[in-house]
Amino acid sequence: MEIIQSLHNPKVQLWRSLKDTRGRKEHRLFLVEGTRFVQEALQSSFPIQAILLREDYEPKPALVSRAPVFHLADHVFQAVCDTKTPQGIAAILSPQTLPVRGNAVLALDGIQDPGNLGTMIRTADAAGFTGVLISPECCDLFSPKALRATMGSLFHIGITISDDFLTLLNQYKQNGFSLLSSQLDGTPFFERSQIRPSFILIVGNEGNGVSEAVRKIATHHLCLPMQGAAESLNAAVAAGIMMYDLMRFSSAQ
Amino acid sequence: MEIIQSLHNPKVQLWRSLKDTRGRKEHRLFLVEGTRFVQEALQSSFPIQAILLREDYEPKPALVSRAPVFHLADHVFQAVCDTKTPQGIAAILSPQTLPVRGNAVLALDGIQDPGNLGTMIRTADAAGFTGVLISPECCDLFSPKALRATMGSLFHIGITISDDFLTLLNQYKQNGFSLLSSQLDGTPFFERSQIRPSFILIVGNEGNGVSEAVRKIATHHLCLPMQGAAESLNAAVAAGIMMYDLMRFSSAQ
Repeated sequence: MEIIQSLHNPKVQLWRSLKDTRGRKEHRLFLVEGTRFVQEALQSSFPIQAILLREDYEPKPALVSRAPVFHLADHVFQAVCDTKTPQGIAAILSPQTLPVRGNAVLALDGIQDPGNLGTMIRTADAAGFTGVLISPECCDLFSPKALRATMGSLFHIGITISDDFLTLLNQYKQNGFSLLSSQLDGTPFFERSQIRPSFILIVGNEGNGVSEAVRKIATHHLCLPMQGAAESLNAAVAAGIMMYDLMRFSSAQ
Repeated sequence: MEIIQSLHNPKVQLWRSLKDTRGRKEHRLFLVEGTRFVQEALQSSFPIQAILLREDYEPKPALVSRAPVFHLADHVFQAVCDTKTPQGIAAILSPQTLPVRGNAVLALDGIQDPGNLGTMIRTADAAGFTGVLISPECCDLFSPKALRATMGSLFHIGITISDDFLTLLNQYKQNGFSLLSSQLDGTPFFERSQIRPSFILIVGNEGNGVSEAVRKIATHHLCLPMQGAAESLNAAVAAGIMMYDLMRFSSAQ
C-alpha cells in the first residue's frame, strides 16, 4: 500500500486547492469529509473521482468500491481536510446537482453565509420541499462550510444554481407557480391570501432581503410577524418557520 | 482626553480577560460590542461599569452619559474586542437577566453551541415567548458569540440560568405548565394532544437531545416530522418552527 507522504505531491496540491472557490472552479471538483458524508456520496449518482483515506483508517469494503483509493499520511490528510479533527475519510466529487421537480420550491436570492445556505437546503429537504433554486449572488454551495451545513441534503433534493435567476423565476410564474417574497415590509405571513398548489418561497440576502427586481415579479409579499423587541430573525430560522407552515397549510406534496 | 495606549494597562488586561468564561466568572462582568448593542444596553436596566471608545470614535452624547468613558488606542480597542472589525464602541456590564414571567417559556437543556443558544433566545423574543430557562450544562450566555447571536434580545426577554434545572421545571409543572420535550422519538408535533395555556418548550443538546431526567417529567414528548432523507434539523431552526407554531395555536400570550 503506497502512502502519500508529501504535501508537494501534485494530487495533494490539487485536493488542497479545493478549499477555495477558485480551486473548485478551476478543477470542477469538490471535496466532502467524514464517514456519513462519503457514504451518502457513494449512494448518490454523483461522479466520484477519488476516495482519500488517512493511513490509519480502515474503511468498510463497500465504501471504496466506486473510485480509485488514495492513502494519505496523517499530516497530508489533515492538510487536505477543512475540519480540525477529520474522521479519516474524504471523497473528491464532480459538482452537479439533482434536477428540481415538484411544486414546493425554495429560492435563495443572494444568501451570503455558507452556514445559512446549507442549513436552508437541509431544512427544505426535511420540510418536504421538492427543490431549491440558488441565485448567482449566493455564496458557493460547494464550499466546505456550506456542504457541512447541508448534512448531505444536496444528495437528496433537487437544486438549480441559476445564471439568470429572474428569467428562471418568471418561467415558474408562467407555469402557474405563486412566487412568495419574504420581506420585512410584507403583509403578515400567517394571514396570507390564497396561494396556488405550486409555489416558490423566496428568501433574500441576510442584510438587504429579496432584491428589488425579484420583489417586482412576486405574487405575494409576506413578513413573519415579530413580537418583543426583536427586529429580525436569523434567515435560516425564518425560512424554516415559513417552509414548515407552507407544507402544513398548502396542497403541495 | 487621555488615551489608553498600553496592553499592559490593568484595566485593559481585565477587559481582555472577559473573552473567556473564566475571566467573566472571576470579575462578574461581560463585554458587548457595537453601536446598536451598546445603545440597547444603555436603554436597559443592566448596570453598566464602563463605556469603551476607540480614539477615533465620536459617539452621540446620549451614548456615554451613564457610565465612565475610556478612550482606547486603535490596537488596544482591537485587542479588547472579539470581532475582527469592531465598530469603535463597547460597554462593560454586570451579568444579570430580566425575570421570567408569563406563560410561554423556552427551556434549553444542554445547548452547546453559542450561536444556537443566542439564536434561540432571539427567536423566542420574536415569537412572543415570555421567558427562557437555561440549564447549567448549556454554554455561557455571556460569551461574545452567544451575545452576538441574541442580537440584544437578552435585554428584552426574561432569562433564568438555573443551578437546579429539574427542580425548576418541576415547580413550573406544579404551577400548571405543560412540559413539552422535543425529541426524535416523540409523537408528531403537529398532532400533539391538548396542551395547557401555560407551557414550556424544552429543547435539548445538539447531539443527545433532551436529558433522560427531563424527559421523565415532561407531559408531552414531541418530534417535528421530517421528510426526505434528512435525519434531523438544526436545533435553532427546529426550535423556531415549534415556537412559532405554539404561539399560533395556543392561548398563550
